[in-house]
Amino acid sequence: MKAYQELSKEELLSLKAQLEKDFEDAKGKGLKLDMSRGKPSVAQLDMGMDIFDVLNSKSDLTSLEGIDVRNYGVLDGILEAKNMMADIMGVTADHVIVYGNASLNVMFDAVSSAMTHGVMGNTPWCKLDKVKFLCPAPGYDRHFSITQHFGIEMITVPMTPQGPDMDMVEKLVSEDESIKGIWCVPKYSNPQGYTYSDETVKRFASLKPAAKDFRIFWDNAYAVHHLYDEEERQDKVLEILSECEKAGNPDMVYEFASTSKISFSGAGVAAIATSKGNLECIKKALAIQTIGHDKINQLRHARYFKNFDGVNAHMRKHAALMRPKFEAVLEVLDRELSGTGIGEWTRPNGGYFISFESMENCAKAIVAKCKEAGVTLTGAGATYPYGKDPGDSNIRIAPTYPTPDELAMATDIFVLCVKMISVEKLLGQLG
Amino acid sequence: MKAYQELSKEELLSLKAQLEKDFEDAKGKGLKLDMSRGKPSVAQLDMGMDIFDVLNSKSDLTSLEGIDVRNYGVLDGILEAKNMMADIMGVTADHVIVYGNASLNVMFDAVSSAMTHGVMGNTPWCKLDKVKFLCPAPGYDRHFSITQHFGIEMITVPMTPQGPDMDMVEKLVSEDESIKGIWCVPKYSNPQGYTYSDETVKRFASLKPAAKDFRIFWDNAYAVHHLYDEEERQDKVLEILSECEKAGNPDMVYEFASTSKISFSGAGVAAIATSKGNLECIKKALAIQTIGHDKINQLRHARYFKNFDGVNAHMRKHAALMRPKFEAVLEVLDRELSGTGIGEWTRPNGGYFISFESMENCAKAIVAKCKEAGVTLTGAGATYPYGKDPGDSNIRIAPTYPTPDELAMATDIFVLCVKMISVEKLLGQLG
Repeated sequence: MKAYQELSKEELLSLKAQLEKDFEDAKGKGLKLDMSRGKPSVAQLDMGMDIFDVLNSKSDLTSLEGIDVRNYGVLDGILEAKNMMADIMGVTADHVIVYGNASLNVMFDAVSSAMTHGVMGNTPWCKLDKVKFLCPAPGYDRHFSITQHFGIEMITVPMTPQGPDMDMVEKLVSEDESIKGIWCVPKYSNPQGYTYSDETVKRFASLKPAAKDFRIFWDNAYAVHHLYDEEERQDKVLEILSECEKAGNPDMVYEFASTSKISFSGAGVAAIATSKGNLECIKKALAIQTIGHDKINQLRHARYFKNFDGVNAHMRKHAALMRPKFEAVLEVLDRELSGTGIGEWTRPNGGYFISFESMENCAKAIVAKCKEAGVTLTGAGATYPYGKDPGDSNIRIAPTYPTPDELAMATDIFVLCVKMISVEKLLGQLG
Repeated sequence: MKAYQELSKEELLSLKAQLEKDFEDAKGKGLKLDMSRGKPSVAQLDMGMDIFDVLNSKSDLTSLEGIDVRNYGVLDGILEAKNMMADIMGVTADHVIVYGNASLNVMFDAVSSAMTHGVMGNTPWCKLDKVKFLCPAPGYDRHFSITQHFGIEMITVPMTPQGPDMDMVEKLVSEDESIKGIWCVPKYSNPQGYTYSDETVKRFASLKPAAKDFRIFWDNAYAVHHLYDEEERQDKVLEILSECEKAGNPDMVYEFASTSKISFSGAGVAAIATSKGNLECIKKALAIQTIGHDKINQLRHARYFKNFDGVNAHMRKHAALMRPKFEAVLEVLDRELSGTGIGEWTRPNGGYFISFESMENCAKAIVAKCKEAGVTLTGAGATYPYGKDPGDSNIRIAPTYPTPDELAMATDIFVLCVKMISVEKLLGQLG
């Protein structure tokens, strides 16, 4: 396909007329499609329904350690749930606290507690003049919302296919004591589906932060969320806790995970993995905050999945459903936009998103145009701190919820809108 | 029985010798009994086991509003859960947010959020020089732990059988702008089992606090937790939200409740009830903190109990189990200590505790003595702010977990220890 940048004004004008006609046709269909949030599909949720048969009125609700999970007690989770979450994160159970239904709350609590009580004996962040976080972007909007909520200044760090720009991370972190954290999605990153390289992880582990209470917020949200069964197409991330230990920074990382996208969204089991020092500090606050999390749901999950093989077997079923969805989107993008020079997109091996880069200053207009034709996308800018994408070019595509057919239709409209807005932009440049 | 205060030194000495002999006998039995925490018994938990048959792999997991509870969304709870929690608190569902597994976390979050972000647009408490809470005492240790955790100064307010000393509450609250809250357990209070009178509730609703962001933390933990089926033995509390509205203080109260002691401890459903103004402020922070609470467990609970009649029917089954336990303790206390002048105790119509008042400066010694003979009680002092009971006289008895037989044995030892310590004290006074 010819790059749009090489088209003459006349060619662009004629293309524009055709695209506008196509758009009116598309609008006429009255579609209502949503590619905005990383939600599991109904079919995917249906696959987990037999978890409800694991516990019934005749079940013995005693945990491995002999705890009656129906009663009070056990601050840090029952052993089988610790084992399950430890396996998912690739750590040992003694590094794990199991929480409630979702990991977002755990991250929120980690920041909130650092604000009011500080991290491992350091000054509470709310007593400091300035607290900053590094935010690799494009990234996850809800991470940025948490730091913004607490008035933490966010500094954007560019993402690369190997992870965040580590030169910039190393420099900033070592020079500025007010930088207290960084948000990371190390595997199948949201939204690009990038996985941090071994070198990136090792450079993270070897950071020399000016702030003693600097923490890496390692949101391992897609640890087992591969799209392909072949091992060579399954991304791997070095285990960060042991890397930090080896590098003499044992306390530098909080790792988060949950089964929200393994069992049920917002009704799963969440966990943190971190050093003994951090665990002790966290448990002190946790003992005030709660008598314990829902151990019955922990038991239900651990008994359902049995072990790590069980988790992976379940995730292969998810992958079989999700693969055609990602491929449906990619097929249209490849067919319609390859060589046009008006967009680039990622081809992740897992996770929940495809990331699209339009020409500069086009993303907002594309998302608005899609909306007009009944296709909802994540708001442009959402993948950047403060909702402001400096290039106005990143668009997050979430292909998990609709069916492959719906996705093909939605992506048809998406590429149509990309073309329209790009043509308008190029015509504007020609004057 | 003759009051111990009227005994001669010789009588006391001879009594002491007898008690010491009895104590050695008791110790010899090697008992291990626990009356320390308000935990449901195994039999009580067994009564709720059929909740696990409510949802199975064939269930339709759609809520009343048509929400698939297995997926993300719904910040404030599904309608049927709102209805259930509203009924328990005696309010309407539009005043309710349904949370996760327990209400302690909700109270913690309410204080934490007030610290970092303030209440309804007022200055965050962490920016103030001084924040104080009123703490009716004896009260619930975990309430006091939360305020202590956040460095909030606690002022003890004496409890009466009608509720907190309202003269003191009114005076302090109207004079001191740094007083931002008060902890209340209005029904079957922990540990005394007192229920606030209508007058107390009305005086609460009519408070004229100096602080605009003063809030009553109304922990309605035992709203439906009666020990007796006869209506005249079931305590009633005026509904505080509407009383506050009537008095022109609609935003002054946060009410908390949960099913922790209805279904399962720490695996139930919790809720807050409050004004529209507060709800809006809370939801703003909640939208950052979570994508939503466990809606599957909300649905399971709502379908299991069906309606408020279902909740009450279930609680009557609990009561049938718990009544003999409370009565076993009271029988021994009545038989052994009536007229002795060395102790007083409450006779609650519900809740989870009996409160015992020893002679001054005896509680710690009694609890320690009991421990020696294998009976664990809540640590003396725990029912007061900072764990310091100024009179060292209050002991909380939690009769819910052991069997009636175990309770009779444990209370036998308890009264023996009360007698021993009291006799020693009286002998000390005689010199």
